[in-house]
Amino acid sequence: MPKALIFDVFGTLVDWRGSIARGLTPWIDGEAERLAFADAWRARYQPAMEAVRSGARPFVPLDTLHRENLDGVIEDRAAPIPEADRDQVNLLWHTLDGWADTAPGLARLGADFILAPHSNGNIRLMLDMARHNGWRWDAILGAETTGHYKPQPESYLGAARLLMLPPGEVMMVAAHNGDLAAAKACGLSTAFIPRPTEHGPGQTIDLTPEGDWDVVAADLGDLAAKLSA
Amino acid sequence: MPKALIFDVFGTLVDWRGSIARGLTPWIDGEAERLAFADAWRARYQPAMEAVRSGARPFVPLDTLHRENLDGVIEDRAAPIPEADRDQVNLLWHTLDGWADTAPGLARLGADFILAPHSNGNIRLMLDMARHNGWRWDAILGAETTGHYKPQPESYLGAARLLMLPPGEVMMVAAHNGDLAAAKACGLSTAFIPRPTEHGPGQTIDLTPEGDWDVVAADLGDLAAKLSA
Repeated sequence: MPKALIFDVFGTLVDWRGSIARGLTPWIDGEAERLAFADAWRARYQPAMEAVRSGARPFVPLDTLHRENLDGVIEDRAAPIPEADRDQVNLLWHTLDGWADTAPGLARLGADFILAPHSNGNIRLMLDMARHNGWRWDAILGAETTGHYKPQPESYLGAARLLMLPPGEVMMVAAHNGDLAAAKACGLSTAFIPRPTEHGPGQTIDLTPEGDWDVVAADLGDLAAKLSA
Repeated sequence: MPKALIFDVFGTLVDWRGSIARGLTPWIDGEAERLAFADAWRARYQPAMEAVRSGARPFVPLDTLHRENLDGVIEDRAAPIPEADRDQVNLLWHTLDGWADTAPGLARLGADFILAPHSNGNIRLMLDMARHNGWRWDAILGAETTGHYKPQPESYLGAARLLMLPPGEVMMVAAHNGDLAAAKACGLSTAFIPRPTEHGPGQTIDLTPEGDWDVVAADLGDLAAKLSA
């Protein structure tokens, strides 16, 4: 049994796509265009982090990457978001809405386990999101505490080190098989929670577990039930 | 008005001296000797951190320094704590008891401000202490998130950077004038809460404010009242 659960956040705990699209309403007309904007913004996420992971640029927090990516998406799509509003738009990532099971699931899991986000999002982003959704974390871990973006091994091993636990007593909870594969390679325990609409109704990836994960659960409530069994 | 309050912990929020002495009961006879042991253990705290601050040794978390110091105190005082028990004794710092006003004061302040410990204690130590006392932090900041022990400027400026706030919107809350002086020199806002029995009934230091602090409050409830006025 794990002593601590660490969570992927974007996609696993929150509906980033729907939340960003809703937040863009004051600037962009039409739900389809807003969803497309959200997808395009998110599509720049991995390439931006890759510049840091590769060593091509020093570590910067995710807010910085999001802000740079925002300029790129606005230019690509000729979106009517004035320069003066862009810092505010960038903060939409701080108040993403959780999936329906997230808040009650975390409250239940928190009775038995140390809980921390292990996201590529920075500390302030994560604490704003926790306040927005009423979550209670024991600590905020993730990229900004280790200076390494997932899926770098230093990220997962750094979380275990900061928690003062052997990696096997730390369970990575994610909706993404790639995240879990990297965690497992570092010796962490793993739990897969499918989020089949993270990328919208036509999602084709991460619909099913693709590795020998320790737990596969339908949602966080199911995860709590399986870990207490 | 500040947007975030960051707290010194040992002494300001918890009674480390009384808690350590109580925790030593299985190993050391006599309250006076237990209090003297706690004082001697704590007396090694600043010199141990100074080795890190000076650059003489790389950053290590406070648990490591506490554990080394424990060996030294046991040897000095010929205390009957066997080697096999010492890791457990070292964890007494993780479950120090808060002063009576701390839990209700933090609960009240948390409604209006971002709250984080800004201690030299490491993340796991702080999260265990929060669970033990029923505190809710927005994030755990402090030495292990910046790699710098207070009162180094990088410590205070790092906290403001991680909170994405100008230093003046971050208030350092402490029972120690030296901590506040260092925070103020970095541009932080300051609040002094006297803890006149931190070092026992004969305490001679930090009984009164010794600087031009933004707020002086009798306890955390009084601080909440003064910040909401």
